[in-house]
Amino acid sequence: MTPPTTGLPAENTTDNNNDHLVQSDDPEHPANLIPSLCAKFWTLGWVTGTGGGASIRDDDLVYLAPSGVQKELMKPSDIYVLSLAAQAQSLSRRQRVYLRSPPVYKPSQCTPLFLAAFTKRNAGCCIHTHSHWAVLVTLILEQQGSKEFRINNIEQIKGFGKGFQKSGNLGYHDTLVIPVIENTAHEEDLTEFLEEAMDKYPDTYAVLVRRHGVYVWGDNVHKAKTQCESLDYLFQLAVEMKQLGLPWITDIEPTIPTRKE
Amino acid sequence: MTPPTTGLPAENTTDNNNDHLVQSDDPEHPANLIPSLCAKFWTLGWVTGTGGGASIRDDDLVYLAPSGVQKELMKPSDIYVLSLAAQAQSLSRRQRVYLRSPPVYKPSQCTPLFLAAFTKRNAGCCIHTHSHWAVLVTLILEQQGSKEFRINNIEQIKGFGKGFQKSGNLGYHDTLVIPVIENTAHEEDLTEFLEEAMDKYPDTYAVLVRRHGVYVWGDNVHKAKTQCESLDYLFQLAVEMKQLGLPWITDIEPTIPTRKE
Amino acid sequence: MTPPTTGLPAENTTDNNNDHLVQSDDPEHPANLIPSLCAKFWTLGWVTGTGGGASIRDDDLVYLAPSGVQKELMKPSDIYVLSLAAQAQSLSRRQRVYLRSPPVYKPSQCTPLFLAAFTKRNAGCCIHTHSHWAVLVTLILEQQGSKEFRINNIEQIKGFGKGFQKSGNLGYHDTLVIPVIENTAHEEDLTEFLEEAMDKYPDTYAVLVRRHGVYVWGDNVHKAKTQCESLDYLFQLAVEMKQLGLPWITDIEPTIPTRKE
Amino acid sequence: MTPPTTGLPAENTTDNNNDHLVQSDDPEHPANLIPSLCAKFWTLGWVTGTGGGASIRDDDLVYLAPSGVQKELMKPSDIYVLSLAAQAQSLSRRQRVYLRSPPVYKPSQCTPLFLAAFTKRNAGCCIHTHSHWAVLVTLILEQQGSKEFRINNIEQIKGFGKGFQKSGNLGYHDTLVIPVIENTAHEEDLTEFLEEAMDKYPDTYAVLVRRHGVYVWGDNVHKAKTQCESLDYLFQLAVEMKQLGLPWITDIEPTIPTRKE
Repeated sequence: MTPPTTGLPAENTTDNNNDHLVQSDDPEHPANLIPSLCAKFWTLGWVTGTGGGASIRDDDLVYLAPSGVQKELMKPSDIYVLSLAAQAQSLSRRQRVYLRSPPVYKPSQCTPLFLAAFTKRNAGCCIHTHSHWAVLVTLILEQQGSKEFRINNIEQIKGFGKGFQKSGNLGYHDTLVIPVIENTAHEEDLTEFLEEAMDKYPDTYAVLVRRHGVYVWGDNVHKAKTQCESLDYLFQLAVEMKQLGLPWITDIEPTIPTRKE
Repeated sequence: MTPPTTGLPAENTTDNNNDHLVQSDDPEHPANLIPSLCAKFWTLGWVTGTGGGASIRDDDLVYLAPSGVQKELMKPSDIYVLSLAAQAQSLSRRQRVYLRSPPVYKPSQCTPLFLAAFTKRNAGCCIHTHSHWAVLVTLILEQQGSKEFRINNIEQIKGFGKGFQKSGNLGYHDTLVIPVIENTAHEEDLTEFLEEAMDKYPDTYAVLVRRHGVYVWGDNVHKAKTQCESLDYLFQLAVEMKQLGLPWITDIEPTIPTRKE
Repeated sequence: MTPPTTGLPAENTTDNNNDHLVQSDDPEHPANLIPSLCAKFWTLGWVTGTGGGASIRDDDLVYLAPSGVQKELMKPSDIYVLSLAAQAQSLSRRQRVYLRSPPVYKPSQCTPLFLAAFTKRNAGCCIHTHSHWAVLVTLILEQQGSKEFRINNIEQIKGFGKGFQKSGNLGYHDTLVIPVIENTAHEEDLTEFLEEAMDKYPDTYAVLVRRHGVYVWGDNVHKAKTQCESLDYLFQLAVEMKQLGLPWITDIEPTIPTRKE
Repeated sequence: MTPPTTGLPAENTTDNNNDHLVQSDDPEHPANLIPSLCAKFWTLGWVTGTGGGASIRDDDLVYLAPSGVQKELMKPSDIYVLSLAAQAQSLSRRQRVYLRSPPVYKPSQCTPLFLAAFTKRNAGCCIHTHSHWAVLVTLILEQQGSKEFRINNIEQIKGFGKGFQKSGNLGYHDTLVIPVIENTAHEEDLTEFLEEAMDKYPDTYAVLVRRHGVYVWGDNVHKAKTQCESLDYLFQLAVEMKQLGLPWITDIEPTIPTRKE
C-alpha cells in the first residue's frame, strides 16, 4: 500500500549520502522551497499527475526533484543534490554524479534541461510546467506553422527581464518572443534543442515545448516564479483572445501623457 | 438538523462490527487516505454533490466510501470494509458481505465496479469521477458516433502505464485509447459493460461512461491517482482543442536528436 | 477603518437580544454552519461581492445571514434568528419579527424567499447563489424565449430528489426541469413569483431567477447543499454544451444489462 | 538565494523609520490587512506575477505595498506609509515623501493612482488588478472602438454604490458604466488620464485600463473589495456572454409585482 512518496526509512539516511544537504529549518532553503513551490504549482495545474517540476541552484549546488513523485506531496528528503563543478568534469554529458540521492527514486528526465539554464544562463531557478495554456498555445502556433509565440501591448509583459546580463524589464510596447521547440520522445533529448533555442534567442527566459509545456528560468527563485506566473497568464490570455478572434500582435500608437512638471 | 455525515454515535461502534479495521493513526491507512483523497478530489470538481468516489484494496481487504456522503466531509468511520476472498465465495454476485459497515449509510452503487478493477486487474485503487471534462468528452464522441477516446502526441500521455502486467509507460507518440461504455439507469448495471470493456481493451487503466464520468484504476494509490489526474488533464485539453478546432489525433514525424556521445 | 463585518462589541450582546441563540460549540449548529458553508460557497464563486446567501431552519427557528456582509468573513454573531410561528401571526407579510438581531446590520432582502421554502416546502435549508453558470443559463434560455431549464440523460441528475413529500431520487433518464422567473427591481418582490413557481412546479427543489441566480432548497442542509452543487455542475455543463453545439435534451434508448442472476 | 520577500533584518528596523506604523496585533490594521487581502487576491488571479496591488487610507495615513513583491507572500514589514497632508505640501507631484519605507524595496508605480482615489474621491481603499477578465473586456471594447464598458439588467450591478457622496446602490435596471483609459508605457503616467476619467465620470468607482487591468476603489476596505469582486464577476460574465453571442445591454420591461398589502 505504501506509495513511493512515503519517504525514507530512518536507517537509510546515512551520512555518506550527504543527507545534511537537504535538512534545514529555514523555509527558504532549496530543499524546503522546492516542495512548497511544487505544492503551490500543483494547485495552479502546472504539475498535474507528476508532470513538470522545479530546480533551484545555490552557487555550485543544484537541488532537483526526483522523477514520478506527486508534486503536491513532495518532501525535502525526496530531493537530489548535484555539484555543477563536479558535473562539468564528468566525461559524459549524459551521466550525472549526485552528491545526495533519495534511496527510492530515479532522477528526473528534466535534469539536463534544468542544468542548461544553470550553466548557459547562470539561472538560480528553473521551472517546468505542463500548463495546458502553454500546450494550447503551442497547438495554435503549430496550426499556423509557427515556431515563436509573440505578443505585445499587454501590461503583464513588463513582468519579464530584458534578457541575460541586461538590467531592467521589458516595456509595455515591447514584443515578448518565446521560442517553441518540437517535443522529442525522450525528455532528455530536448536538451540540445533547448540549448539551440537559448543560443538563437539569447535574451529569452523561457522555451515552449510543442505539445508538452514550457521551461522558464530566472536569476533567482523570485524571478523564475514570477516570470513563470506572468507567462502562464499571457498564455491563458492568448488562448482566450484566440477564442474571441482577437490578434496577439497589434500596432498601437503610444499614449503620451502631458508632462505637468 | 444532523446531516448524514455527522458520523457514528459511540454506542454503535461495537467490536463485532470490526471498527478496528478503520481506526489507525497512519495517514496512509486506507480508511484515512480515502477521506483525504476525496476531499482533494472535491476541490478538483471530480466528486461534486456526493457523485463519484474512491476505493482502495490492501491485499484481501477492500475499503469503500458509502453512498450519498459529501465527499469533502467524509470520515474514516464512514468507510465500509469487504473481503475479496469472502466475496468470491458468495453465492450471488449482487450480494455483498461487509466485514465492517458504518451504521447510518448504504453501500455505494459503485462497489461492483471497483471490485471489477480489483479482481480482473489486480488494482490497488480505483477512482470514479463525475468530472465535467470527462462527460463533455463522451458527449463530443457521441456526436461523432464513437465509442473510443483517442489522443496522441501530447506529453502527458506518458503518465499512463503500458498496460496490465506490462512494465513501463506509454510513449509520447503512442496513442492513448480509452473505451466509452453507455450509461445505464442503475450504476450497478454498468458492471458487465465495464468488464466487457476491460476484456476488449486489456491494457486500459480507465473506462469512460457516457454522460456520466470515468473509472480509473492503478496498481496502487499513487498510480491510480496520478493516472486519473493525467486523464482529466487530457480530457480538459481535448475539450479546449475541440473548441479551437484542433484535432486530437495527428501524424507527427518524430524529432530525432543528434546523439553527441 | 472598521468594516461592517468586525462584529459585535461585547457591551451590545445583552440577554434580551437572545444572543444565546447563536452561541454554540457545536460546528453543526446553524449559527456556526451558515458561516462555514458561506465561506465554502465563496470559494465556489456562488456568493461573490456579498451576493447570495444561505438560511437554515431548525424546527421553528430560522437562522439568516444579514444583508451586505462579505460571505467568506461571516461570523455566528452576525446571524439573525426568527420564529416561523411568530412570523405566521404577524399582521404584515412584509414585516419581520426577529428573536435575535445583530446590532450593526440590516436583514437580508432574501429573507421572504427563504421563508417561502421553509413554509411552503418544509425545507430545512435554502441556498441562494449568484453563480455565473446559473445566470448564463437564464440568458441562453431568454434568447430562446424559454422559462424552463430542461436537461436529461446526465448522471448528475440523480442527485435530485423526486419532489416534495416523495421518496427517492430522479433517475438517469428523467428530465430535470427548473422553472425560471423574471428578476424584479427589489429582491423581496421576487417572493410572489417564487411562490407561484413552487405552486406550478410542486416537485422542484430550485427556481432560477433570470439575470440573477438561483434558489435551491432541501429537507436538510445536506440535501440543500448537495442539490445546489449538482445543479451548479449541470448549469456549467449546459453552458459548455451550448458552446460546443450539443443539445441539453436527447432521446436516448436505455441500455439494458443482461441480468446474470 | 534570498528572494526580495525575505523581509527586514532586525537591525534595520530603527525607530526613525517609524516601523511602529506597520506593527499591530489587530488583523484589521492596514499593515496586516493589505498582505492578507493580497494573498486572497492572488488566489483569484488578480495579482499574478507581482502585478496589481492594494492600498488602504486610514485618515491621513496611506499604506502601500512595494513594487515587485510576490503578492501572496507580502508581510506587514514590506509596507510603505505616506502622509496625505505632507504629500499635498510637496513641491512636486512626482516626488513622494514616505513616513515609513521598507529598506529593500522600491515604491510601487501604482502609488499616484491610488493617491488619486484617496484625494479626489476620499476613498478608504483602492485595489488594482490585472484580472484577465478585465483585460479581455478592454480588448473586446477596443475592437468595437469603445471607451466605455456598459452592462445592465444583471443583479450583481446592485453591488455598486450610486456614486461619490451619494447614498444607496445602483438598481437592477440601471446601467453600470465603467470608463476605459488607454495604457501608457509607464504606470505613473496613467495618473492624469485616471483623474480625467474621474472628472468625466464623477460617480464611477472604477476605471478600466486598456490591455492592463482595472482600478477599483470604495469608501472603505469592505466597499472597495466587494465592488472589485462584483466588477470582476461582471467582466467574466461579459466575456462569456460575448462568447455565446449575448448582448451586454438589453431593454427589459420591469417585472411589476402585485402588491398584496
